[in-house]
Amino acid sequence: MLEALRKEVYEANMELTRRGLVLYTWGNVSGIDRESGLVAIKPSGVEYSELTPEKLVLLDLEGNVVEGALRPSSDTPTHLELYRRFPEIGGITHTHSTHAVAWAQARRDIPCFGTTHADYFYGSVPCARELTPEEVEGGYELNTGKVIAETFERRGIDPHYVPGVLCACHGPFTWGKSAAEAVYHAAVLEEVARMALYTTLIDPAAAPAPQHVADKHFMRKHGPNAYYGQK
Amino acid sequence: MLEALRKEVYEANMELTRRGLVLYTWGNVSGIDRESGLVAIKPSGVEYSELTPEKLVLLDLEGNVVEGALRPSSDTPTHLELYRRFPEIGGITHTHSTHAVAWAQARRDIPCFGTTHADYFYGSVPCARELTPEEVEGGYELNTGKVIAETFERRGIDPHYVPGVLCACHGPFTWGKSAAEAVYHAAVLEEVARMALYTTLIDPAAAPAPQHVADKHFMRKHGPNAYYGQK
Amino acid sequence: MLEALRKEVYEANMELTRRGLVLYTWGNVSGIDRESGLVAIKPSGVEYSELTPEKLVLLDLEGNVVEGALRPSSDTPTHLELYRRFPEIGGITHTHSTHAVAWAQARRDIPCFGTTHADYFYGSVPCARELTPEEVEGGYELNTGKVIAETFERRGIDPHYVPGVLCACHGPFTWGKSAAEAVYHAAVLEEVARMALYTTLIDPAAAPAPQHVADKHFMRKHGPNAYYGQK
Amino acid sequence: MLEALRKEVYEANMELTRRGLVLYTWGNVSGIDRESGLVAIKPSGVEYSELTPEKLVLLDLEGNVVEGALRPSSDTPTHLELYRRFPEIGGITHTHSTHAVAWAQARRDIPCFGTTHADYFYGSVPCARELTPEEVEGGYELNTGKVIAETFERRGIDPHYVPGVLCACHGPFTWGKSAAEAVYHAAVLEEVARMALYTTLIDPAAAPAPQHVADKHFMRKHGPNAYYGQK
Repeated sequence: MLEALRKEVYEANMELTRRGLVLYTWGNVSGIDRESGLVAIKPSGVEYSELTPEKLVLLDLEGNVVEGALRPSSDTPTHLELYRRFPEIGGITHTHSTHAVAWAQARRDIPCFGTTHADYFYGSVPCARELTPEEVEGGYELNTGKVIAETFERRGIDPHYVPGVLCACHGPFTWGKSAAEAVYHAAVLEEVARMALYTTLIDPAAAPAPQHVADKHFMRKHGPNAYYGQK
Repeated sequence: MLEALRKEVYEANMELTRRGLVLYTWGNVSGIDRESGLVAIKPSGVEYSELTPEKLVLLDLEGNVVEGALRPSSDTPTHLELYRRFPEIGGITHTHSTHAVAWAQARRDIPCFGTTHADYFYGSVPCARELTPEEVEGGYELNTGKVIAETFERRGIDPHYVPGVLCACHGPFTWGKSAAEAVYHAAVLEEVARMALYTTLIDPAAAPAPQHVADKHFMRKHGPNAYYGQK
Repeated sequence: MLEALRKEVYEANMELTRRGLVLYTWGNVSGIDRESGLVAIKPSGVEYSELTPEKLVLLDLEGNVVEGALRPSSDTPTHLELYRRFPEIGGITHTHSTHAVAWAQARRDIPCFGTTHADYFYGSVPCARELTPEEVEGGYELNTGKVIAETFERRGIDPHYVPGVLCACHGPFTWGKSAAEAVYHAAVLEEVARMALYTTLIDPAAAPAPQHVADKHFMRKHGPNAYYGQK
Repeated sequence: MLEALRKEVYEANMELTRRGLVLYTWGNVSGIDRESGLVAIKPSGVEYSELTPEKLVLLDLEGNVVEGALRPSSDTPTHLELYRRFPEIGGITHTHSTHAVAWAQARRDIPCFGTTHADYFYGSVPCARELTPEEVEGGYELNTGKVIAETFERRGIDPHYVPGVLCACHGPFTWGKSAAEAVYHAAVLEEVARMALYTTLIDPAAAPAPQHVADKHFMRKHGPNAYYGQK
């Protein structure tokens, strides 16, 4: 069932580890087939060296396991909530990549300091608030997804323009039109987080890039008249 | 004698170097067979590229060499003291991994800034005090073990909840139910130490994660109702 | 056409990725044949793993494509402007290498703190100013080249003595007598930027190297009586 | 002539690059045969990938080339001065390794913050003063060696107890009883410099390790009653 989705999500999980974004099992990738409404996700706690496409778990958007002998990632309710709230995304990645985690642990948005950031994220990468004790107790992972969606709604951020978020005291989630693009954005976010740390070390008062530079770079790659790449 | 233990401790030592946690011979792993009370440990100053299971040294808990032609690690008395004081641990690792050493040299506990830390260490990773001149002179390595155990007792820390420590001006020791888990914890500690450094660089006043987040993450992996992994 | 130039520029692009200076497609190298006035440059958005000498684009100095089925790098107008304004250079490299970007994002010149820097760059590596909204809107990439050339002219810097620049909120461009040397300078600049960051972390008030040390090191490699290397 | 020395110095040069201590040609190793008084050293500006034992240059202690078709390293007069002034050392290494250079550029001694440092360097690694304009003009490399020796004499440091130095605004030299040990010390110095940087970032007021800890660690490896390793 959904062999193409399984294969793509498997490849995206393996790319996550090849890119050096996960230590041990600290990350997961999922992808969705919007037609059937089914999600493929990494099983919980399985080493990447032992992962196969067959070990992925298939679920519907309500969290019912449709195919798979293993438990899905413990972060599954977060993924499902994001697929429900951001109806156009096709893949989601969660990591504990070092520099993105550092910004999350400092509870700070990552400012858009330059064009590397602006090429992928239109404005700051937001840091979502900590969960309350009640939210942690009553459905921690589901509420993580709700707080992410709430952050984008409350701050008026379009998830297609900013395909990632930091969860305070935790780490990043990124997404894209596919599982592969979600992983690509996870790698970009980690590098952007690293550059931003070094920027603030050189100048603790460094200002974000001017708005017209951020506009230009995002739009030359993603706007209606984009002219980066082939096509 | 104890071929399985030898093999496991050998593999754990080799994993230590594969994980990039040791330069030259700056680390060692031991494991204990609680039934016989015998400990297998790396010989002193032997390059990892020349290590074999047969070169490991077997000792009893009083430090008598039971099997082995080479001198055991100079840190052996520390390992033995920890096995005596923490009777349920099965393996111990010592490294000079870069970021853990930096916190040890700064004589600072590593605060629990987020879930990466909380997944493995319940609360701060403590920094044990420096040894006095008398303690250094009269059995340095044994007293290192005593000061570690004293730190956990005095501060009321359960070594199963916090499977590692920093020794002031020296470096980390970690442990686990096996030699392999002790190495796993050494790798986690190094990464957590790195993330904590970067967190404080982004915000020197960064606060630890809220207690309810630390509780949740430690317990979903280690508590009676743990639901991470494949059970 | 211009097989030798194609081959050299191809090799220089591949060296860029082998040196760890680019993530994904974040960089490009060009080279010029001064006799014919033709430039070979990487096509836009093409993965390095899929690059071949045949995929490079050949253009004249006015930007007319002479050979090649793909779009040239979006940074092509910057390269062409630099070839026009710095008539003796033979190759240009653009990257988003981490530490050079951090200095660019902090809008700071990289001071000449020591001999590693002085061996290649005679004085600070300048950070060119941000573009105005008008410059961004009306020919962003061309104006990037103009602002770089303006920086060198206004500050009286000889581009042969300082073969690189930081563009504020963006990243570095480097050049040399060939595409290979431009990449070499990109690698040196990244390392020099990293050393300079660490220097300021150890001493935020660190002063540049004395002028006589900078003179000596630059001149023993590049002056009329240079005595480094095999002549 | 002196095949064994050539082979050892060649291997030490290659180890330097395998350890990640040199970018391009930024480093060199020499070794001396004290019986004949002849020194083997890397030729200047030759890529490591093209180095062979035959390309090494043999010189006497006055700098006369005894064997070799290539120019010796431009740092040769520094090496020779150190062999003359420190008559018991057998090998010397010079690098531009990143973290050691950062301390040199900040003109700071590396404090002995912990046992990793104390295992190899007894006390701070000194930063030698900058050369005067006259010293730079009249025999720069020779005077570099003189200022290093002067630093050890003036501060009463025994070069066997502290087998390395930082040259202000330049980088480190290390030595040992052989070329191999000089490289070993270069790798240790780089790691110690990195740990010291991170220590000061965690606590800018971090104090050196207590003297009794430094004594213990240096002496258990190097003192008359040393008990580290297999003797």
